[in-house]
Amino acid sequence: MSQISALPEEYATPLAPYLPLLGPHELPHLTLTYATSLDSAISLSPGTQTHLSGPISKAMTHHLRSFHDAILVGVSTAVADDPGLNCRIEGAQSQPIPVILDPSGRWEITESARVIETAKVGNGRAPLIIIDSKYLDNDNVVQRNKMLQKYGGKYIGLDLDEKGRFDWRSILLALKSLGVESLMVEGGATVINTLLGTDETRQLIGSVIVTFAPTWLGQGGVIVSPKREFDDEGKYEPPRLKEVKWIPMDQDVVLCGRVTRK
Amino acid sequence: MSQISALPEEYATPLAPYLPLLGPHELPHLTLTYATSLDSAISLSPGTQTHLSGPISKAMTHHLRSFHDAILVGVSTAVADDPGLNCRIEGAQSQPIPVILDPSGRWEITESARVIETAKVGNGRAPLIIIDSKYLDNDNVVQRNKMLQKYGGKYIGLDLDEKGRFDWRSILLALKSLGVESLMVEGGATVINTLLGTDETRQLIGSVIVTFAPTWLGQGGVIVSPKREFDDEGKYEPPRLKEVKWIPMDQDVVLCGRVTRK
Ligand SMILES: NC(=O)c1ccc[n+]([C@@H]2O[C@H](COP(=O)([O-])OP(=O)(O)OC[C@H]3O[C@@H](n4cnc5c(N)ncnc54)[C@H](OP(=O)(O)O)[C@@H]3O)[C@@H](O)[C@H]2O)c1
Ligand SMILES: NC(=O)c1ccc[n+]([C@@H]2O[C@H](COP(=O)([O-])OP(=O)(O)OC[C@H]3O[C@@H](n4cnc5c(N)ncnc54)[C@H](OP(=O)(O)O)[C@@H]3O)[C@@H](O)[C@H]2O)c1
Repeated sequence: MSQISALPEEYATPLAPYLPLLGPHELPHLTLTYATSLDSAISLSPGTQTHLSGPISKAMTHHLRSFHDAILVGVSTAVADDPGLNCRIEGAQSQPIPVILDPSGRWEITESARVIETAKVGNGRAPLIIIDSKYLDNDNVVQRNKMLQKYGGKYIGLDLDEKGRFDWRSILLALKSLGVESLMVEGGATVINTLLGTDETRQLIGSVIVTFAPTWLGQGGVIVSPKREFDDEGKYEPPRLKEVKWIPMDQDVVLCGRVTRK
Repeated sequence: MSQISALPEEYATPLAPYLPLLGPHELPHLTLTYATSLDSAISLSPGTQTHLSGPISKAMTHHLRSFHDAILVGVSTAVADDPGLNCRIEGAQSQPIPVILDPSGRWEITESARVIETAKVGNGRAPLIIIDSKYLDNDNVVQRNKMLQKYGGKYIGLDLDEKGRFDWRSILLALKSLGVESLMVEGGATVINTLLGTDETRQLIGSVIVTFAPTWLGQGGVIVSPKREFDDEGKYEPPRLKEVKWIPMDQDVVLCGRVTRK
């Protein structure tokens, strides 16, 4: 994997107010971040990885990673992209812990997964994989857990809520108990859409940082667009950002903001 | 309708290179422009108008209108929004001609349509409505045409192509023959998606100017996203912009560019 140059000061400075806040908090600071086309697609199709960001906004993503204790993605991203989930800026001081939401343990992670290869050579960390507690003693999971533990990773069992999902608050509390004070949520669309989809989960978002590339991926892509949550009177108020800043980065633009709270 | 202040110089200057080029051209300069949410929705649902732009980007739209001879929208926008389609900047020197694509004459335009009311008081022009030629002598159309002509507007008959649509080149030629040297295409989604959907129609686009507002309208909106056009080998190359400029305008950002040609 190629190294990435540091993000130039002129871009790093306007970004600074949106970095995780220091100090003791009940929950880790959650930064929601993704790269998208003009038509809100984060990839051309579910099983593929689409490169959207240019060199500067890519450096921006790695810059962000260097300020977070952990990076989270859904299992479909892990399976589709075999991502490194590390910070590739030359001379990075610390590396974020990859966190994967894999309720039914369907990611068949092996020694040759990029995230493990990266950990082996000291360029990143082995992942924490969050799984439905009931699968923790499944044979495959036990085997993979041993492999992960060799490199400092592991499976974490969590119970599903009544919707058959991990509750975001529980995810954050579990990570906090492991020393994670800042979490960057990178995707994919399912993860982002559920996080943006309810007032309750939006409350957990500390900052939003989105990269737009000047292309339309066209109908059929993997789309970021939350489900609408209607109130008791059948009204819908679209989530909006406040403290908005748009930072042009060459061909792309980076949007920074915080979610408005009800 | 409220008046709008002139677009401040700091925003007008970077926009200038994307304004229609002067000089004789075979076809009018086509500027594609729309205002969208982060999830590429231009309205919450088909029959409704959703206000997305803030005051500065709204002034930007009216600034653009003042540089174009005509503004085009699809009939669904005319029916849903009853738009004024005029330039509301104080002291505007000239007004663009509204153009509506209404193949089957389903817009029941009357004297009280906003666009006519606006023309009556001298704040705008009466529309040109492009209709399938075969409906030109339909009774209703003849009646409405008389009304339009009182204010300087009219129906224009054009033949449909094999897909049952007006061919964009023919639309531009028809407008050119009426003295239109610059056309701003404002929407809705059907109009934009067909224009962006093929290499042939993209060639007709002189510049693209899109406003993004920092909100997600959520699943179920009216979406800008072109159909994918696959080449003979089944490959798809997403349309991309070149000569890109992102101009932050308060809460919104305005993207300017030109479509890359094959
Ligand atoms: N451009 C970018 O910034 C970017 C970033 C990341 C990914 N991507 C792209 O996004 C695509 C994948 O996105 P995707 O929407 O298909 O999948 P995804 O969000 O990566 O993964 C979704 C899966 O993760 C699990 N999951 C997510 N939230 C959960 C929760 N709260 N509780 C329990 N399980 C949860 C579920 O697994 P189960 O199905 O097993 O229940 C769910 O189906 C890929 O093409 C990838 O390249 C793009
Ligand atoms: N945010 C913005 O910038 C913005 C701007 C404009 C509109 N809007 C919103 O967009 C929505 C309407 O969009 P829409 O996609 O439903 O409709 P639309 O694009 O306004 O109108 C589509 C209709 O126009 C006719 N048409 C379009 N292209 C044609 C062609 N090449 N040849 C012949 N006829 C053609 C067809 O009429 P027939 O169906 O009769 O064949 C077609 O169904 C509204 O909610 C409006 O508020 C938003």
